Amino acid sequence: MSRGFLTLLSDFGDCDVYVGMMKGAIARVAPQVGVVDLTHRIPAQDVAAGRFALASAVSFFPIGTVHVAVVDPGVGTARRGIAVQFDGGFLVGPDNGLLSGVLTERAAIAAVELTEPHYWGTDMPSATFHGRDIFAPVGAHLATGVPLKALGPAIAVSELVALPVAAVERMRAGWRGCIQYVDGFGNLVSNVSAAAVSDRAWSLILPSGTVVPGCRSYSDRAPGGVVALVGSHGWVEVAVNCGSAKEHLQLEVGDCVEVRFSTG
Amino acid sequence: MSRGFLTLLSDFGDCDVYVGMMKGAIARVAPQVGVVDLTHRIPAQDVAAGRFALASAVSFFPIGTVHVAVVDPGVGTARRGIAVQFDGGFLVGPDNGLLSGVLTERAAIAAVELTEPHYWGTDMPSATFHGRDIFAPVGAHLATGVPLKALGPAIAVSELVALPVAAVERMRAGWRGCIQYVDGFGNLVSNVSAAAVSDRAWSLILPSGTVVPGCRSYSDRAPGGVVALVGSHGWVEVAVNCGSAKEHLQLEVGDCVEVRFSTG
Amino acid sequence: MSRGFLTLLSDFGDCDVYVGMMKGAIARVAPQVGVVDLTHRIPAQDVAAGRFALASAVSFFPIGTVHVAVVDPGVGTARRGIAVQFDGGFLVGPDNGLLSGVLTERAAIAAVELTEPHYWGTDMPSATFHGRDIFAPVGAHLATGVPLKALGPAIAVSELVALPVAAVERMRAGWRGCIQYVDGFGNLVSNVSAAAVSDRAWSLILPSGTVVPGCRSYSDRAPGGVVALVGSHGWVEVAVNCGSAKEHLQLEVGDCVEVRFSTG
Repeated sequence: MSRGFLTLLSDFGDCDVYVGMMKGAIARVAPQVGVVDLTHRIPAQDVAAGRFALASAVSFFPIGTVHVAVVDPGVGTARRGIAVQFDGGFLVGPDNGLLSGVLTERAAIAAVELTEPHYWGTDMPSATFHGRDIFAPVGAHLATGVPLKALGPAIAVSELVALPVAAVERMRAGWRGCIQYVDGFGNLVSNVSAAAVSDRAWSLILPSGTVVPGCRSYSDRAPGGVVALVGSHGWVEVAVNCGSAKEHLQLEVGDCVEVRFSTG
Repeated sequence: MSRGFLTLLSDFGDCDVYVGMMKGAIARVAPQVGVVDLTHRIPAQDVAAGRFALASAVSFFPIGTVHVAVVDPGVGTARRGIAVQFDGGFLVGPDNGLLSGVLTERAAIAAVELTEPHYWGTDMPSATFHGRDIFAPVGAHLATGVPLKALGPAIAVSELVALPVAAVERMRAGWRGCIQYVDGFGNLVSNVSAAAVSDRAWSLILPSGTVVPGCRSYSDRAPGGVVALVGSHGWVEVAVNCGSAKEHLQLEVGDCVEVRFSTG
Repeated sequence: MSRGFLTLLSDFGDCDVYVGMMKGAIARVAPQVGVVDLTHRIPAQDVAAGRFALASAVSFFPIGTVHVAVVDPGVGTARRGIAVQFDGGFLVGPDNGLLSGVLTERAAIAAVELTEPHYWGTDMPSATFHGRDIFAPVGAHLATGVPLKALGPAIAVSELVALPVAAVERMRAGWRGCIQYVDGFGNLVSNVSAAAVSDRAWSLILPSGTVVPGCRSYSDRAPGGVVALVGSHGWVEVAVNCGSAKEHLQLEVGDCVEVRFSTG
């Protein structure tokens, strides 16, 4: 027996019933759909953090999953609501770059602007909560098999708002990059990919000049020790075994790091 | 294939397994029931905040949904456990006013006191955790179609404990009300309803005398600006675009505000 | 229609998509399995707290439920991944004592080491996230009926890593024990069991010498008052009605308490 899957990601936190309202709106459309929370604790209005988190997660879900994401400081303005079909399923949310991280790694197939109220939760959506009134019900309809094109007019995929990550720079013996995300453990995730280091031996150079040898797991260092490794997101990261690299190293998003390959 | 829905709301937080235990108790009765968390981060023992949150959420769920709510400082005392049928489904929880917000907006049909142990999770309920041992299993039974009257003797709906919200006061050109809830973003939700302002132009007068023109969405002001609008709960609220009105304005529940209609 | 149940417990927090990734991995194996979060806010790397929380929760779930638990500071080292069949269902996680609290209360039937990649989510598991790449998919397979022995070679149950709780000491008129867990309300849970006090009258002696009479529910004391009772976990605990015993009494895990039976 197959059933649709739908994930939710937002900056709504968990102190209020906002996420619960979205789930109610989904249940009213499609009670049989399985709903999974990715996280609702994206920092408020931090579209870049939401972009990273969503892009990290989608490939672990079944093909065809619908991902509804709402970090939407422009709600109620002219920013478009969109749905995008890609090779792993569907994305639904505001056209502000939040969905664009997925599309740098996966192939977009088609996109539409959400203008068809028949698939919304109400004819009179709140000006402040499109997640509940538009995105969640639209996602539920997609999960039940409503075709993308029914939701509104097509948009060229190339015209979607993109929020690019800073590019890494090729060095003579490695890569210069930066911190693109800090997770809840205080691990500092860079924009240097697993593919960029491949099987080579490498070290990470911190802004302070400290050299941290690349290793394989957090426990390759004693508790409290600084570790550089390819994290489970698929990016080079800096961590502190049993601690917070963010606090220990006082680094944040945008700070530069360098991956240097070992010679010989 | 239809299946029942059940929501959970509590002040149990998410650091412990208390909510998980409730879900286990539900699964033992009715594994096919879909369970949705409204929130478990109602401030500890804050029945009024729970009352507001529950009343905000129920109308977004399918008709027939069972809402189990537990903010229960009187657990183990003589306060009654109740189940209420209303025009949208069922409510289950302590008779301490927590459920009464729903019933000011929706029609109560019948109520019972939960005295029938056959529908509890155990013959010997813990004196401190009726959520797990009574309310969750009773809710699961309701979701599978057990009739309300099987759960215990009828109570007149008029005898249920009510926790009224302060009434708004009609002014010559508007309404005097107060802050009734502060959400996790720091938005200050008043007790002046959307219906009270309807389509008229209005401003909100803060206790400091500051006049905030009513607008439509958070982004009608620059980031950091104070915004007054009808929020997605259906009440006039004060917010700060990309910020916390609670911290910025230093207001809290009970502080007075006034909605003044524009002349002309 | 029956369906399998699977619970998740971890120290991953809720700020990131790590838990969401695990749910994706489960959905790819077994979309029909019901997934319940016990908690993901076990303090980071605190195996003892995770052990207590898991042991508290399992008995409230249907027989046959699969419990996947990940508090795993040794991930990527030689510590084994295991699955255990017990009289209530299955446990999956690292062999570091996290699962051992369940097995002091319930009968273990068989255990295996997770060496069979056919049941993992990937042939190349991340060195830092076995929860997503091994434990969650293995748990999903168990929930769909894959036999334990298919997952890897048998381990003698007696050889599993145990993390024992400090034993209580029999006194002339009671028990000397200690605080073994502090919950999110600040309630201090001791290692003296409900069975140890049974129906007798008793008082709790705090390290300060203060004597707190045992009672039945939090509200047997006025708000702010210190309460000793048998908590819903089944252990003697110290609480403050409408407050935090941890903050009020400045006690923590390991501090000694004494249960003294009343004479006469």
